[in-house]
Amino acid sequence: MEKTKVAIIGLGNVGQGVAKLLLDHGDRTARHAGRTLWLEKAVVRDLKKARDCELPAGILTGSVDDVINNREIKVVAQLIGGLEPERTIMLQLLESGKDVVTANKALLAEHGPELFDRARELGRSIAFEASVAGGIPIIANISQCLSANQIISLDGILNGTTNFILSKMHEEGTAYADALKEAQRLGYAEADPTFDVDGSDAAQKLAILAHLAFGARVDWKDIPRMGIDRLDKSDVRFAKEIGYRIKLLAVAELDGDTLELHVSPTLVKRGRPLSDVSGPFNAIRVVGDAVGELMFYGRGAGQMPTASAIVADMIDTAVGRTAITFRTLELWSNRKARVAPREHAKADGRFYMRVNAEDHPGVLAQVASVLGQYHISISSVLQQEAANEDGTVPLVIMTHETTEGATRKACAEINQLKSVRGKTVRMWVRD
Amino acid sequence: MEKTKVAIIGLGNVGQGVAKLLLDHGDRTARHAGRTLWLEKAVVRDLKKARDCELPAGILTGSVDDVINNREIKVVAQLIGGLEPERTIMLQLLESGKDVVTANKALLAEHGPELFDRARELGRSIAFEASVAGGIPIIANISQCLSANQIISLDGILNGTTNFILSKMHEEGTAYADALKEAQRLGYAEADPTFDVDGSDAAQKLAILAHLAFGARVDWKDIPRMGIDRLDKSDVRFAKEIGYRIKLLAVAELDGDTLELHVSPTLVKRGRPLSDVSGPFNAIRVVGDAVGELMFYGRGAGQMPTASAIVADMIDTAVGRTAITFRTLELWSNRKARVAPREHAKADGRFYMRVNAEDHPGVLAQVASVLGQYHISISSVLQQEAANEDGTVPLVIMTHETTEGATRKACAEINQLKSVRGKTVRMWVRD
Repeated sequence: MEKTKVAIIGLGNVGQGVAKLLLDHGDRTARHAGRTLWLEKAVVRDLKKARDCELPAGILTGSVDDVINNREIKVVAQLIGGLEPERTIMLQLLESGKDVVTANKALLAEHGPELFDRARELGRSIAFEASVAGGIPIIANISQCLSANQIISLDGILNGTTNFILSKMHEEGTAYADALKEAQRLGYAEADPTFDVDGSDAAQKLAILAHLAFGARVDWKDIPRMGIDRLDKSDVRFAKEIGYRIKLLAVAELDGDTLELHVSPTLVKRGRPLSDVSGPFNAIRVVGDAVGELMFYGRGAGQMPTASAIVADMIDTAVGRTAITFRTLELWSNRKARVAPREHAKADGRFYMRVNAEDHPGVLAQVASVLGQYHISISSVLQQEAANEDGTVPLVIMTHETTEGATRKACAEINQLKSVRGKTVRMWVRD
Repeated sequence: MEKTKVAIIGLGNVGQGVAKLLLDHGDRTARHAGRTLWLEKAVVRDLKKARDCELPAGILTGSVDDVINNREIKVVAQLIGGLEPERTIMLQLLESGKDVVTANKALLAEHGPELFDRARELGRSIAFEASVAGGIPIIANISQCLSANQIISLDGILNGTTNFILSKMHEEGTAYADALKEAQRLGYAEADPTFDVDGSDAAQKLAILAHLAFGARVDWKDIPRMGIDRLDKSDVRFAKEIGYRIKLLAVAELDGDTLELHVSPTLVKRGRPLSDVSGPFNAIRVVGDAVGELMFYGRGAGQMPTASAIVADMIDTAVGRTAITFRTLELWSNRKARVAPREHAKADGRFYMRVNAEDHPGVLAQVASVLGQYHISISSVLQQEAANEDGTVPLVIMTHETTEGATRKACAEINQLKSVRGKTVRMWVRD
């Protein structure tokens, strides 16, 4: 049987998973690729470090040059995080005639155009299924399977860490800080969880998906985002009482030739496909004008789910499918962006608000009057007898369809009311 | 821009959808294929029939020879149902050098080996994404995206007609016959719904998926199947009371080198991904040994969802991805089947049983004693005070893990008890 020689750069958690699949399960790649993917080299920083997977002699090396200078190696899985020297290594791999597979979304977010341009010039390809949503093959589905569609919207749970924390808060009434600690204990959250919990990780993934699905060209740092780090457990409870679950959603929504993008805690109605996505799972809903609503659900991280995506990319690259897709899609090329960012304030939707009001007559009227000024129509109000510790009463309002800008301005004005204490909480609502 | 000339055979509902996508949205195919898919011919039986889509002059023809003899046409979407002359036409298309895209699962089920062998001999390809689950790209996902996995199990809601009927019964307590009438009125069920409601349609789709995912070679008629046509609304209600929903599931589950296959109404626990799949939607859950649990959700039928799958296949075929996949996978070839069918009686799982018992002392003991003889352990019992019209009392039993054979034999014996009337209802339970 024909052999395609491959290499792995970086034998961390995911790298070891990839090595296991290639070494222990060569029959699968043979069956799906009509050839053997032959692991020729694995580059590591520390040759002596103990590892889970046993490698045949001669594979392990400390030098990336052993891959770059080996002309027989055709496909390289570059599985190291960070921007430099990762960028330089990827350029060297491409220049030495190798096709690259990566999971490094930060690298794509920062240097995508340069790397993709160079790969195109050289007739090479970069595959990156594992960079978004781990084991869920969302990149292939958007790039190939939905190619007959104009995608209208895409929203999803793209970060397993925050979804685990939110599930804890929802199911057990845990406070944010305690749920975070539990996530750290179980290995779902890192010691410094900032990048996950503030929505940055989801925004990087959303920027990649928005480029694939809508031809948007957007810097992830420009995507309006709110994390879950300031989420109060009372809002989780109120959402539950009115039949919703709070999820950190990454949203891309087409409106004419503009695209609304944001990452934000969002109330999702119970029974809707995204609402039951619990724990460390991810899910992405895609609405296409022909296919209608689709949802993809699975593990967004972890050693073997990510390795599953990497090895599928290696097979696609070895058999030549990736080259075709890469050539035809012209990702991060000098093609004009097909959509402009939507002015965020004009984005429409329904909203959840929680006002902390003093418990005396007329407050609801005042709040409702401010909403009325901004033409915000109220869909429901929940006011419970139990007061907060500071004597205020939480006033939960669900609006009808309005705009982000109107609700932002209204909340700012409500916060100025004498009978209101603290900042009004505001979140998107999606069916 | 380069042109690939294509043709459609059959301008029914789906065919018109395909024509619309090709004619009105050429920009999409150009963007995803790097070329124009140029609709050259559309073959119809009746040239004068009124149609929704407007075709440019010269496209419509009554003769399939206008496609077969046109050497410039490279890709043909063959969108007619039935077995003959469809088989002959597909062979003629392949022999005249065309790659074929089809949604005709019955044709694949009956003549797959012959057609695929012939395509291979001729260096041609057959794409069939639309033959299973309409707009959900399950074929591509199993064939390509999950190629690093040994798939362990696959279960899903593959028939929208029955899922619509079950949703009606669950949500509104409607009886089967009334729910079926409603489905027919809305166009979700055909005048003769037998093929859908008796599980045959799902079994045909399952046979295709089992071949792709497990290398099984099975005649769909050999798949044990039970439809929903004898489902009593009381079982829907009992399932609901104990926290389950009844779904018609098509199941393929690996056990060593044998494969359990069946289609059956099944109790699915609320909150699990498949339980919330309502109305005409389909969903397929796939568990791979690397990726873990994945679910794909979307519209399993309808004009545009199906056309979405057909046109994606046409694009894949035009750019050359299909040829690669077709060549490497060797579907329905003389490759040995990788799994043998599991003896159905040995398949293990949990079961729901409803016994119609006379309301006098000792009956539960008798039933429990029979279950004990077959080593079936009871997980829960529900016996309500309200009796049936015939004076019997429904006794609902959920078992722990046991086997299909044990429960079948136990039910047969329970049916012989003097205090039991009618046939005991038995269904699979899945988490």
